Formats: sequence, structure tokens, C-alpha cells
Amino acid sequence: MERITATYYIETPLDLEKSALVLAGEQSSGTFIAVPGETEELKARFAARVESIEKLESSTEPSIPSVKLKPGIYQRAIIKVSWSIENFGYNLPVLISTLQGNLYELTQFTGLKLMDIDFPDSYANVFKGPQFGISGCRKLTNVEGRPLIGTIIKPSIGMSPEQTAELVKTLVEAGIDFIKDDELLGSSANSPFDKRVDAIMNVINAHADKTGKKVMYAFNLSDEIDQMQRNYEKIVKSGGTSAMISLNSVGLAGVKKICDNRELAIHGHRNGWGMINRHPLLGIEFPAYQKLWRLAGVDQIHVNGIQNKFWESDDSVVTSIESCLKPFLRGFSVLPVVSSGQWGGQAVETYRRTKTVDLLYMAGGGIMAHPSGPAGGVIALQQAWQGAVDGLSVEDTAKKYSEFNQSVSVFGKK
Amino acid sequence: MERITATYYIETPLDLEKSALVLAGEQSSGTFIAVPGETEELKARFAARVESIEKLESSTEPSIPSVKLKPGIYQRAIIKVSWSIENFGYNLPVLISTLQGNLYELTQFTGLKLMDIDFPDSYANVFKGPQFGISGCRKLTNVEGRPLIGTIIKPSIGMSPEQTAELVKTLVEAGIDFIKDDELLGSSANSPFDKRVDAIMNVINAHADKTGKKVMYAFNLSDEIDQMQRNYEKIVKSGGTSAMISLNSVGLAGVKKICDNRELAIHGHRNGWGMINRHPLLGIEFPAYQKLWRLAGVDQIHVNGIQNKFWESDDSVVTSIESCLKPFLRGFSVLPVVSSGQWGGQAVETYRRTKTVDLLYMAGGGIMAHPSGPAGGVIALQQAWQGAVDGLSVEDTAKKYSEFNQSVSVFGKK
Repeated sequence: MERITATYYIETPLDLEKSALVLAGEQSSGTFIAVPGETEELKARFAARVESIEKLESSTEPSIPSVKLKPGIYQRAIIKVSWSIENFGYNLPVLISTLQGNLYELTQFTGLKLMDIDFPDSYANVFKGPQFGISGCRKLTNVEGRPLIGTIIKPSIGMSPEQTAELVKTLVEAGIDFIKDDELLGSSANSPFDKRVDAIMNVINAHADKTGKKVMYAFNLSDEIDQMQRNYEKIVKSGGTSAMISLNSVGLAGVKKICDNRELAIHGHRNGWGMINRHPLLGIEFPAYQKLWRLAGVDQIHVNGIQNKFWESDDSVVTSIESCLKPFLRGFSVLPVVSSGQWGGQAVETYRRTKTVDLLYMAGGGIMAHPSGPAGGVIALQQAWQGAVDGLSVEDTAKKYSEFNQSVSVFGKK
Repeated sequence: MERITATYYIETPLDLEKSALVLAGEQSSGTFIAVPGETEELKARFAARVESIEKLESSTEPSIPSVKLKPGIYQRAIIKVSWSIENFGYNLPVLISTLQGNLYELTQFTGLKLMDIDFPDSYANVFKGPQFGISGCRKLTNVEGRPLIGTIIKPSIGMSPEQTAELVKTLVEAGIDFIKDDELLGSSANSPFDKRVDAIMNVINAHADKTGKKVMYAFNLSDEIDQMQRNYEKIVKSGGTSAMISLNSVGLAGVKKICDNRELAIHGHRNGWGMINRHPLLGIEFPAYQKLWRLAGVDQIHVNGIQNKFWESDDSVVTSIESCLKPFLRGFSVLPVVSSGQWGGQAVETYRRTKTVDLLYMAGGGIMAHPSGPAGGVIALQQAWQGAVDGLSVEDTAKKYSEFNQSVSVFGKK
């Protein structure tokens, strides 16, 4: 019988093997006292199994304060635990409750993070994965050989549909590939969803008619299920090609339901991510997280960016990009979305470390506040990536390209 | 215009007021550089506002390790931030992205926890809240004046529908009020959902026909949206009165969609809670969390238990119970579910600290492993609560009631 294997980074003041067994027991057949009906045969079939324990460093302080433990040595380890797929079949919410449920409550651990999940092949027969992924998003935007260049409408909230459409007009004429709503904007008092779609798609469709290039706009349809379905249909009817969902706020069942329509490229925004990842020994790491959303059918997913304005390290961002680009099951291609304080200056380092142009590269002020205007900003970003791929340094790219040189002089000083 | 106010517990190495303003800016109109279109009028209408800052203790170590900050003093504070409801209206996912989104990513904070949310009155006109709540669950189970006594089917996973129904038969004859699936069991290889519902409801309906008491069984319907709807209808058609959802695994949009059917009492299981709450300065506290699920329409929600087997302190459990019992908007009554290592011995302390019997009090081994069998276990729990309400100590309750005395002799030694 196929098994699913989860890799955890744990910390415990107790015996390593014993605490791993507690985890496995709690997440398959545990209770605090033996009860009738728990036969050896049932245990063998449905019990979780500790596959391996790799002892790592230890600490004299617990990673997470615990009132219930006496002072001691806190031993860290990587452990692998497996479950028969007979336990939950292809039910993702129950799988999550098993791999990420009550185990975080166990007093036996002063740290626990889900690092990765290995799914058996049969998952590829049940889940369709992303409908568009990298090649689909490239086809929809007609961009090959370089990252898609994107931006976010700012201010996040407050502009009318007409003001937003004006900004979109500026951006599409500037040569942008992709634009998105901010995650803070759904349907606000002065920017109702339908009116915003109408105003923006008028601009995008007219530009496509004239130039043959349809800019991808990810409208934020995050809401309750029925309203998301109505929003989705509105985008499709209006000729849009993408919708954005705040993954953590909507939740897995809702996201899967929307992805199942399979007509729009789904832009997965991971806001709330810091809450479940920021602590080094609590929550979930991106390699595990992104697999769940690829199973749900998300086409694009946020990975933060090199030298970002947030707390995340460059190493973590690189690992995230690599995990997206690694084939999963039948491929399940997903486009990594790079953003946060990006202006082009990070292209060289991003390419040096990931050796890929299969990215949606998002810049905000880096485009809108460019000295030559948004068109200069978009060109500068394309130049930055050309320089990066050609192996040039930031300085040499700036010498070669005037628009990027302007970016360096404005944004490089920060 | 009505505003929503969030209370955060924060920690920062920077100026308190400045970091609070960064949070407000990031979660309404922030970007890393000023952009055209951001007028003062828009800011005034849509910008988040820092309402108050209450300085607390400081620390020389950051609560969450940060690679991007130099050593310093980490100042803690309670801050209140408000948003106009014009920003998101009654869209819960966008509200969550605003109150719990990218703010956890800010380098300015080495700790950030959402403590509570104040909703304006108009939310009561838009959301229906729980359909059953405390009084509805009491009516469905015909229990007044004491906690509902419940248990969980163990082993969590592995038993066939027939074996489970046998156990249910034992439990309903023992006088139990409530039984639930384990959150690890949805539809497994040897316990398909529909077959389990048939087998169990046969027992429960027959017992109800004979005695007039219909035991509430919370079938775990957690799955994708369409399957959850089918599972829901199956329960309704079979005469069931309740369904369980793993709140965090399914997500808000999916849970709301199921609650909106309003025919079954929804048992909200919070597995995964440790991931978003266990660190004292990261995530969300229960008073904020439970409001979101009451808005969604959840009728029962887990609060852990006094002297539980998990990491959570008794103080935190008491705060959780109190927050559930506090009226919210039009009341939005929700029944707190007490569980984890409970056997009756904790009734005295639970009542002493909360002065309520409006609880669903869950015991596992405390019922099944009782020396006089499950009937003795159920009676012992009722006796424990009678003693607690009468102001008796554990010892005096044990002297007065023989079944509870047996519980003390077996479970009180642990």
C-alpha cells in the first residue's frame, strides 16, 4: 500500500525516539489510555510509522517557551514519519489535519516544523494540478525567454475603478506583462469588484485588439465561495485571463473549488505566511506548503524576493524558488512570483542563485517611480534581466543600458 | 463610517510609534516609495489608524530570531489599529488578509500576535452567526443544567463502520450525549463516510425511537467543497444532527459555505491551532480566533481543557472558555468544547474558574476505560460535574459518588 511521508524538524527535551513515537501515535491511533478495539492488526495497517531520525544540534534553551517542562537539553532532529494512504485517501483537508494537526500541541516538542511531504504517484491520477503553470502563463501573456514583468496597483486601496483603469492604461502602454490588485482590495466602497473588472478589462482588451498583447490582470476575487464563483465568471465573461486568491485567508477547500473551474490562471497570494513560517521551529516550510497549493491547482505562487523588504533571508527565498521549479508528480508546473522591494537591482543576484528566468518578477515603485516614467521602469526591468542572464554585474548592466542606469541612480541608493 | 479595531501584542527594537505606523501603512496604502495617485483625501478615508499604544515590558532578546536586526532592546506593547469598513465591507477573507496578512512579514517586528477584534454592529445585520449555539445544542440532545457529556471514537482510525457502530451502541446505552469522529478520520479505506453514517445512525435512531433521546454524533465531513455538501446531505437524510469540520484544514470560505446550510450543528475542530498560537508572540489568540468562526456560523468550538495533556496553560483555557461565553454581536452563541486528557477530575477546577456548565465536556479513556465500563464512565462524569456545581472538592465528590470514586482511583493516579 502506498504511503505518504512527512519530514519534520523537531526539538525535544525528551528521548528522541520516544517523542517521535508519540507524534506518530497521536496522529494515527493515540489516546491517553489503552482502549478496547485497538488490535495489533489495526495498528499495523493504520498506525503512522517513524521512518528515520537524524540527530542534529542541541540547545540549552527551548525554541518555544514551555511552562510545562523542566529545564534541560533541547535536542533537535530531522524525523520522517509515514502514513498509509488508506488513512485519508485523497482528502487534502484530512491529510492536513494528520500532518499539521494536533501534533503542534504536543508537550513533548518545544519546536516542530513540517519541512516537506512526499506524495505517492497515485496522487497524480486524482489531482489535475495547475491548469496553466509556467508555459500556460507564458502563452497567455506572450512572453518567452525572460521573466514576466509585473506590478501591483498602489495605493492598495482607495482608488476608483476609473482611476485604476487610468493607471492600468499607463502600465499596459509601458509594456508591462502582468498587473494585480493588492490583497487588501476585494470589493471596496469606492471600487466594487464588477465595476473594476469592467473599467480595467476595457483598457486591457482595447490594448490587446491594437497590439495583439493581452496583459494579464489578476483580479482579487477572495471572498465567500458563491461570491468567488460569481467574481470568477465575471472575469471570464470580460475576457480576463487571471484571478488572485489569498490562499491562507480563503483556505484550501475554497481555493481548490475555484481552481477547479480551470479557465483562469490562479495567482496564489500567500499573505499570512509569516504567521506560519517566521519562527524557525514552528509551522511549515515552503517546500511542503507549495506542494499543497499545486495539488489544489494554483498556477502562480508568491516566494518573496532576494534582498526583500521583509524579514525573510535570501537563502529561504532561493529554496522557495527552487522548490517551485522542481517537477512534482506529473510536473504540476507553478510560476514563482518574486516581489517585495524589487526594482531590477536584484535581478543579477536572483539569476546567479537560481539560474532561471521562469519567474513572474514584480516591482511597484521600481516601475511607477522610474525617472523616465513607467515605460522606462518596465524597460529597465527587462534590461536588468538581460544583464543578469548575460552574466553582467549590476554596474556593467547599468553602463550598458540607460533606463536601468536611471533605476540604479534612484533606487540603488536606498 | 464604522471602523473595525484590531488589538495586537507586538515587540519591536525600533521606536514604538513608528513601527505601529508602519503596520498601519503596510496594511492599508503602503509601498516602499511614494507613488502618483496617493492623495491626502484617499489616505484620510482608507488609511488604517493607530488608535492607542500601551507600552509594556522589554527584553534584551528578540522573541523571534531575526537575521536582519542588530542587537538592541526589544520593546513590547499592546497597540490598537483601526480600519474603515469601507476597505473590505463584509468580506471575511479580505478582512483576514488585512488584519492577519503581510504584517507578520515586517522586519520592524520581532513578535506580533492578533489578540482581539472589535466588529461594528452592522456585522450583525449581514452575518447570521451560529444556527444552534448553546441552547440549540441543548435542545437537540435534551440536556439541561449540566454540561453535555461527550466522547471521541478511538482508535482514531482503523475500525470498520460495524465496529464503530458497536462502540456507539455501547456509548448511547451508557447514557452519553455526544460522540464524534476523530479529526484523522474522514472517509478511510475501511470506513467509507456513507457506510459509517448508515451504521451509526441506525444505532442512534433506534435508541432515539426507544428512549426519546437522540445522541448527537458529529461526523467528520471535512473534504473538498462538493464532497462536504454531499456528506452534509447524507447526514441530514440519515437523521443526524451534527457535522464536524477541521476549521484550519478546510479554511474559512469552505467552513462558511457548509455552515450556511443551517440544518446541522457544526462542531468546529481547531486542530493545527498550536501552529498559529503556541508561540507567545506570533499568530493569533483565541478571543480573536473564535469570533471569526462565530461569524462563519460554527456552533461548537474546541477550547482544550483544564490540566490538559497538551502544552496549553490553564489560564489560556479559561480565557478561551470565557471568550466563547461572552455575547458577540447579536449573541452568536457558541458552545465551548472541553477536551484533552479529561476524565472528570478536572470538573471541580473547571467550574471553579469558569462558573459555567455551558460546555461540551469530552472524555475518551475516562469513559471507555472506567472500571464499571462506559456506563460507569458517563455517570462518573455527571457526578463530577454535580460535585463541582455543589462546591465539593474532588475528594468529597469521590466520597459521595461511587462511580466517580472509581474514576479517581484509576485516572487520578496519573
